[in-house]
Amino acid sequence: MSTSASLSGLARRLADIVGPEHVITERTERRTYESDALANHAVIPGLVVLPATAEQVQAVVRACHGTRTPFVVRGAGTGLSAGALPIEDGVLITLTRMRSVVDVDLPNRRVVVEPGVTNLEVTGAVSAEGLMYAPDPSSQVVCAIGGNVAENSGGAHCLKYGFTTHHVTALEVVLPDGATVHLGGDGISPDPPGYDLLGAFVGSEGTLGVATRVTVKVVPKPEAVTTLQAAFATIDASGEAVSRIIGAGVVPAAVEMMDPLAMEAAEAAVHVEYPPGAGAVLLVELDGAREEVEHLSERVEAVCRDRGAFDIRLARDEAERALFWKGRKSAFAAMGRIARDYYVQDGVVPRTALPEALQRIAELAAEHRLRVANVFHAGDGNLHPLVLFDASVPGEPERATDLARDILAACLALGGSITGEHGVGKDKMKDMAKMFGPDDLATMQLVKCAFDPGRLANPDKVFPTPRLCGEAPGPYRQHPLERAGVAERM
Amino acid sequence: MSTSASLSGLARRLADIVGPEHVITERTERRTYESDALANHAVIPGLVVLPATAEQVQAVVRACHGTRTPFVVRGAGTGLSAGALPIEDGVLITLTRMRSVVDVDLPNRRVVVEPGVTNLEVTGAVSAEGLMYAPDPSSQVVCAIGGNVAENSGGAHCLKYGFTTHHVTALEVVLPDGATVHLGGDGISPDPPGYDLLGAFVGSEGTLGVATRVTVKVVPKPEAVTTLQAAFATIDASGEAVSRIIGAGVVPAAVEMMDPLAMEAAEAAVHVEYPPGAGAVLLVELDGAREEVEHLSERVEAVCRDRGAFDIRLARDEAERALFWKGRKSAFAAMGRIARDYYVQDGVVPRTALPEALQRIAELAAEHRLRVANVFHAGDGNLHPLVLFDASVPGEPERATDLARDILAACLALGGSITGEHGVGKDKMKDMAKMFGPDDLATMQLVKCAFDPGRLANPDKVFPTPRLCGEAPGPYRQHPLERAGVAERM
Repeated sequence: MSTSASLSGLARRLADIVGPEHVITERTERRTYESDALANHAVIPGLVVLPATAEQVQAVVRACHGTRTPFVVRGAGTGLSAGALPIEDGVLITLTRMRSVVDVDLPNRRVVVEPGVTNLEVTGAVSAEGLMYAPDPSSQVVCAIGGNVAENSGGAHCLKYGFTTHHVTALEVVLPDGATVHLGGDGISPDPPGYDLLGAFVGSEGTLGVATRVTVKVVPKPEAVTTLQAAFATIDASGEAVSRIIGAGVVPAAVEMMDPLAMEAAEAAVHVEYPPGAGAVLLVELDGAREEVEHLSERVEAVCRDRGAFDIRLARDEAERALFWKGRKSAFAAMGRIARDYYVQDGVVPRTALPEALQRIAELAAEHRLRVANVFHAGDGNLHPLVLFDASVPGEPERATDLARDILAACLALGGSITGEHGVGKDKMKDMAKMFGPDDLATMQLVKCAFDPGRLANPDKVFPTPRLCGEAPGPYRQHPLERAGVAERM
Repeated sequence: MSTSASLSGLARRLADIVGPEHVITERTERRTYESDALANHAVIPGLVVLPATAEQVQAVVRACHGTRTPFVVRGAGTGLSAGALPIEDGVLITLTRMRSVVDVDLPNRRVVVEPGVTNLEVTGAVSAEGLMYAPDPSSQVVCAIGGNVAENSGGAHCLKYGFTTHHVTALEVVLPDGATVHLGGDGISPDPPGYDLLGAFVGSEGTLGVATRVTVKVVPKPEAVTTLQAAFATIDASGEAVSRIIGAGVVPAAVEMMDPLAMEAAEAAVHVEYPPGAGAVLLVELDGAREEVEHLSERVEAVCRDRGAFDIRLARDEAERALFWKGRKSAFAAMGRIARDYYVQDGVVPRTALPEALQRIAELAAEHRLRVANVFHAGDGNLHPLVLFDASVPGEPERATDLARDILAACLALGGSITGEHGVGKDKMKDMAKMFGPDDLATMQLVKCAFDPGRLANPDKVFPTPRLCGEAPGPYRQHPLERAGVAERM
């Protein structure tokens, strides 16, 4: 079956822009794009188009705007919040053909890339000069920079290096009406004048437009890196160690924690030889000048020992360091060894509330009669609970969804957030109302309406109750929030 | 003379809100507020009101909104871009009474303050616990956090620590229509979901609303600090040293440079004893763990020596360190010793273009027959040329303005920016069009119109050609940029 009649005119128009071989209309081929890495949401897109240049993206968006056709943009499809979930009667704009590194400006340490370039390819472009692109999501080998921008991706090292938003210095963007604008000024000034729309665009999950060119800064690779793995009898003890390390003013490059179930899965997959009886294992990475790293490494080791760590290993070489990380990074995929299905969540709690949050997750898991493995960025309180279930057992998928939802509610109750780095997408729309008041959400939607009054760009994502932007007021005549329907709260 | 008839009704309404003693109507008293620290712009406000609480701010803004009266918000008045320049027929909302530290959350390293709290008072609230608020504008003893938020203030140490936007984690904001909203989520999550309107608000120069409560993060004071002062024969040689230091992967806490005229003025004021014959003096501060700092300090010294530094002094103690900084920080005020009047500028060039920029400034100074002293943040290419003139000599003030304007144009020609940290305000509105295209400016104004369709909040600032927000389109019927009048460019 081919694209519906209502889209077939648009398909011809898009074929004129990108060439017929880059417009996908056959249903079986379109189905390849039905979900991102969060497979429990799936919709077959009405039409898939693969532009190769910024000009083609602009023409595609204009064609969508002209026919009032909603569109979703997709990079490598590695997202975990169904942010790139397609629309049945809409267009999926896939940017995997836009793979050029446009400019490498070594003196100013800037790299300009097209959005389909992978995260690791940015580092690849400057690695020989001793530089790197700092944000490192686990999917960095395949995930696209455009998707990193849309989701404001983090990674294991964002405790020290920050998120994508801290590394993007300028963007070329096609707005939902087809206008091309530049956000972030010259890409050099640390604080360009005017509104920081660059910051607002990064993390906007494809709802404000399409980034067609991304300027990022690159930083020197650290002179030295040490990775320490420490086992603790309990999660509480390891959480206490994390608080003490950070409380002492040390800023590790990464602080990762795994619980016994996560270790069990990783062990089965990559044989790290986690110490028997460990209730938690902590991975602390330090980087910087050699002497600093050695000095801090001793301090971290002393803190761990003081908090009862019983098996402390300092990676002796790059191979052992890689093994420690392989255990951590394989944990998600390794869940298949101990459970048929799993559902990854992404919540944040204040770092000081980590032990309480993990206790609460254990209680909730017992209530819902499911297992939860925990692998997470302990340094910034970003939890990634993996809810294990068996989709073939009636009721389990529903219980898994309920449990995941309850875990997020627990994060919020502890003063945290419904997402640390995976975004809201389709998956967590409803949770937004638990975190923000109606006025706060209405204020965000003022921006959505300003950029995209026709609600064409990734509609029905992020916001729990998307509103029609409708008729806007003339000056002074109407309360600006009335359009968004919240005036009754005033 | 009192407030005009058109404002006297509003004055009574405001007196009901804040008490009559906190509404200023007498012209001589209003005149106190006619300018910020950039005295070449002055307008006596129609009315001055000093609310004491967030609720009073909200009521004041609602009263302005109800009577369609434009308003400007002022903190301590230390701004350098006429951002708080009042409006003759408008209200000046002064926040100096809002001086409470609302909450100190040590475990999560957050401090919540009212906007009138000074920059240094934030550090004061946590100093005993070994913490500090990192952004440090030269005016930090008096400048208000609310003003820091409005201008996204930097400071000498922003090379390492970043700007205000990197340290504000949440804001309570009264929008121009009087709605109170919360930006930034919980103030804990490093990457809260939804649009990053917090980032867009920081640096919006009072054009999007009034921050009534500011949550900032505080960081551990460094274990050790060393400050090195090095003299060079030429600016070029010192610029080369800066490039080499940063190129080597060292991130100093601060890298400041002064030229001979700046040294002459500072010497007259504070007697630093700059070495005779120095064409430039460099101040490099390193902070962090003691061993790291000592190690890096040796590296920096070696680079300076290698680039021809002939008088390298490492501050022996806190007193000498304070003296080095006193020379640097007093340079602006000390200009009075060598010139009757001066005009501070604030431009940015790529760090690699520093020598060329300074050469160009010298040429422009000669063309305009005026002297220019240079004191600047060399690490991030943020120049602060001080144009010296005598206002009593006919033609000199005009030549000073022209020269300052030409210097900014030269910064732009080198790929830089019209402002590094002082903001656009009234002073640099016209320069915005040199830096951004009409579409880029129109996109920013989409946000202004969304937040403030009546153009009440600090109107006629920042944007070179403010536009009426007028009638907005229904869905699909009109191009979103058409309202901003740039559709002809599409």
